[in-house]
Amino acid sequence: MNIKEQLQHKIDNKTKPLGSLGLLEDIALQIGEVQNTLSPKIENPALLVFAADHGLADEGISPYPKDVTWQMVMNFCGGGASINVFCRQHDIQLHVFDVGVDYDFPVELPVEKVKVARGSRNMRIEPAMSPEECRAAMEAGAAAVRKKAQNGCNTIACGEMGIGNTSPSSLLMHKFTGYSVEECTGRGSGLNEGQVDRKTRILQEIAEKYNPETPEETLATLGGLEIAAMVGAYLEAKKQNMLILIDGFISTAAVLTAIQIDSAVKENCIFCHSSDEKGHKLMLEYLGVKPLLQLGMRLGEGTGAAVAMPLVKSAVNFLNEMSSMEDAGVSNKE
Amino acid sequence: MNIKEQLQHKIDNKTKPLGSLGLLEDIALQIGEVQNTLSPKIENPALLVFAADHGLADEGISPYPKDVTWQMVMNFCGGGASINVFCRQHDIQLHVFDVGVDYDFPVELPVEKVKVARGSRNMRIEPAMSPEECRAAMEAGAAAVRKKAQNGCNTIACGEMGIGNTSPSSLLMHKFTGYSVEECTGRGSGLNEGQVDRKTRILQEIAEKYNPETPEETLATLGGLEIAAMVGAYLEAKKQNMLILIDGFISTAAVLTAIQIDSAVKENCIFCHSSDEKGHKLMLEYLGVKPLLQLGMRLGEGTGAAVAMPLVKSAVNFLNEMSSMEDAGVSNKE
Repeated sequence: MNIKEQLQHKIDNKTKPLGSLGLLEDIALQIGEVQNTLSPKIENPALLVFAADHGLADEGISPYPKDVTWQMVMNFCGGGASINVFCRQHDIQLHVFDVGVDYDFPVELPVEKVKVARGSRNMRIEPAMSPEECRAAMEAGAAAVRKKAQNGCNTIACGEMGIGNTSPSSLLMHKFTGYSVEECTGRGSGLNEGQVDRKTRILQEIAEKYNPETPEETLATLGGLEIAAMVGAYLEAKKQNMLILIDGFISTAAVLTAIQIDSAVKENCIFCHSSDEKGHKLMLEYLGVKPLLQLGMRLGEGTGAAVAMPLVKSAVNFLNEMSSMEDAGVSNKE
Repeated sequence: MNIKEQLQHKIDNKTKPLGSLGLLEDIALQIGEVQNTLSPKIENPALLVFAADHGLADEGISPYPKDVTWQMVMNFCGGGASINVFCRQHDIQLHVFDVGVDYDFPVELPVEKVKVARGSRNMRIEPAMSPEECRAAMEAGAAAVRKKAQNGCNTIACGEMGIGNTSPSSLLMHKFTGYSVEECTGRGSGLNEGQVDRKTRILQEIAEKYNPETPEETLATLGGLEIAAMVGAYLEAKKQNMLILIDGFISTAAVLTAIQIDSAVKENCIFCHSSDEKGHKLMLEYLGVKPLLQLGMRLGEGTGAAVAMPLVKSAVNFLNEMSSMEDAGVSNKE
């Protein structure tokens, strides 16, 4: 039997009706396959939040002012944001990276300073990043993951903070999936209907303006610095054979981009939740994946991945800890 | 402002887009209302598993032999069942009760011996329980909850073990909701299509045989000893103003019964998951509730409630620990 068959055999012989742990069984099988073992482990899980500003925010595509990007980074450092709460709850190491925030953080602040630029450019006018900036942001993400791997972490999630970042995510989704800009564009952090129409028109205009050819060129043209960092992080996490917990709309757009570069990334991904942001369900369907949670969340920061962590651990735990029918002396089906 | 308005105000002023924690916000609001505080707490959570046999199992309505009931109770005591794993993971105190298992457990086994009978009767022939037996089983559940409350527990879930117990649950659902027996009857622990047809015909025959009038009479006639214990437990938990975490099909049938007796029980209930057992989605719809998880689980034992516990805690934690916009100096919508 290969490892997949051995894992399935182990799962099927647990003291429970066949298949009765549903999606947790699929996740247990996947994790066992990724780690190539019948006794997988989640070790030193980490959540990397990448923050950056977006030139496109000047076009009023977000209901929040751009300053919220740096203000929320300060909030992460103070421990008061949603992602802090959930990482504390689940013993997830949280690291915050300034990849491109338009603000000078105090030196003593626990933010990893890997600033590539003071935000991406307004892509209504010019490409969001130069190829060099995009590569540098990707490398910042990759380096962060390498460092975690060196410290015994085998499970990562990425989160993001960047006012305006559903817009580049919608454009990446549009380019890679072929869904219309309208299907890919939603309310973000809370636009009303008229504002969504306006956002959609602006994104449509941008989509028509450029014809990038490679995934990297698409990312540089239509992405953002924190999104590029996430793409780099995901690609490196696959190289390190880590488990990759995927959050919501922006994370999924980033991993969709990573998958264009290395399709094997998907094997290591656990899709943690279905966000309320329009387009996310469609993107998950396109990837052919079933997310763990449907809580109507749309907060970002990696929160959907963080709250799903205990379910991932439940999958690992039942595989490692439950008795087999034989060991427990429980009769099987008649 | 009343407590609900105060809670909503507190939730809306957290450093996040309005409503962006989805269902977690609804749960936080509900828990705050139940506990009548802006800073609710989950204290000493417990999971009570009630076990009993079913005379109806003689009709071959389960793919597993009746002996699995006592064998699984032994497995609970050995710590190797699914519910043990998830309770350990989430620091939930697990207690197992023999309300009506057709087996004599060794005295030293950590099973609370509250046996009312050696199983319910075969309801194809006669009512499952006498009114006295049903009351005694309900009281066993209530006493278990009272004891937990006295020991500082403010959050309980119930689980069950009883080969054949989807059948009484389907009948209770049918009687209380008016859905057809066919709509209420599913595969249980893994019947095939032909076996489900046979189970449906038997349940249809039973549904036509009796005309119980009160909820208590319906429970005694068509229920089971562990289901009656759960009904008693839920009613008492409401009296103690505990949070009540509801598991899957059987737990929901039990709480549906409890709600017929005291409709206020529902206020304290968090519906933890949508089971793969046919009828459960319909029953949740009937109750007008949205469950936390949709993992395709159908294991019972309280497992769906146990794996949802961290989400319930996440709801409480964000309410207690997140900064407000004002405290964190984060700008609001423009």
